[in-house]
Amino acid sequence: MDNDDLRRGKPTNHKVFCEDIAFLAGDALLAFAFEHVAISTVGVKPGRIVRAIGELAKSIRAEGLVAGPVVDINSEGLTDVGLDHLEFIHVHKTAALLEAVVVLGAILGGGCDEDVERLRKFAMYIGLLFQVVDDILDVTKSSKELGKTAGKDLLADKVTYPKLIGIEKSKEFAEKLRSDSLELLQGFDSEKAAPLIALANCIAYRQN
Amino acid sequence: MDNDDLRRGKPTNHKVFCEDIAFLAGDALLAFAFEHVAISTVGVKPGRIVRAIGELAKSIRAEGLVAGPVVDINSEGLTDVGLDHLEFIHVHKTAALLEAVVVLGAILGGGCDEDVERLRKFAMYIGLLFQVVDDILDVTKSSKELGKTAGKDLLADKVTYPKLIGIEKSKEFAEKLRSDSLELLQGFDSEKAAPLIALANCIAYRQN
Repeated sequence: MDNDDLRRGKPTNHKVFCEDIAFLAGDALLAFAFEHVAISTVGVKPGRIVRAIGELAKSIRAEGLVAGPVVDINSEGLTDVGLDHLEFIHVHKTAALLEAVVVLGAILGGGCDEDVERLRKFAMYIGLLFQVVDDILDVTKSSKELGKTAGKDLLADKVTYPKLIGIEKSKEFAEKLRSDSLELLQGFDSEKAAPLIALANCIAYRQN
Repeated sequence: MDNDDLRRGKPTNHKVFCEDIAFLAGDALLAFAFEHVAISTVGVKPGRIVRAIGELAKSIRAEGLVAGPVVDINSEGLTDVGLDHLEFIHVHKTAALLEAVVVLGAILGGGCDEDVERLRKFAMYIGLLFQVVDDILDVTKSSKELGKTAGKDLLADKVTYPKLIGIEKSKEFAEKLRSDSLELLQGFDSEKAAPLIALANCIAYRQN
């Protein structure tokens, strides 16, 4: 357990059960996600379920969620990581997952193609927003406030938004992502959109 | 690379690209399997595609394919591994995969429930057969004949069928699995069943 694990009282799986078992648990959970959508979805036409499963798979595979950590690992020690490179990692690590969550809801809920694509863009914005806010919190909060070690990115010499464009511009970028994401929700039924608006604000204004 | 890798001229991924990347590649391929079924299946009713995806997922998750290596890893160094234990590992490591392959074909091909369940049993038999034959070849063939190091199981002190019940009884068991599997194919259209019969014989009589 490292300090963060100890603080949270939660050691990670690969430390408790060894790496092999932790990776196998990951495979099992990955398969379980597909099983859950295939078996437990009720009241939705099978054609929409198949489309949702295709989306879920696409969000994970080599050009999706997996690409983020791969580029991240291969970027360790690089000195010329720019904004595009950083955005690629963040979009693929976090935004791809949020995209799947939001888009699956839209497909299974009966959204038309235009709705699905607008919500896809919304999810990408709030996914990137999550990472920008993460980078900002790492340099502006104490470990106690975060509930995990602050300043980790600096220590690990990791490329972050504050490092590349400064704290103020990072905050401006975060605010732009938040307002652009909310703009995409205009026109939707306000009651149905409420949880998505709350999600965007929660990601933008979180303190840890 | 170990000797087997060198002989085949094919180092494994985790040695060439590091473990993290190899595991991520596995996740990507796992997701791609689901994507392929969801997106590339043509001429099949969506309801059957959803059922096939559910089967594929079930064959992988904690009670499926993943259970084999987990029990295998946790059995290292155990001295009281019996036949049931060994069969559990083999059924979950190899048979679960063959089961998915055969059952998916049956579902997507329009088989009724009874057909699907008979073919599921057939696949389990030939999956177990594959492992029993593997164990036999390991102690009866030279490294040159196998194309990989012979006697590996003995060296690794691994529990195998020949070790638990002897070579002759292992061969009898393999023959029983072969004939029982072929019996399950009786009644099917002989042209359609031909590739499955060939598969069972190929697994039973392979020399490496």
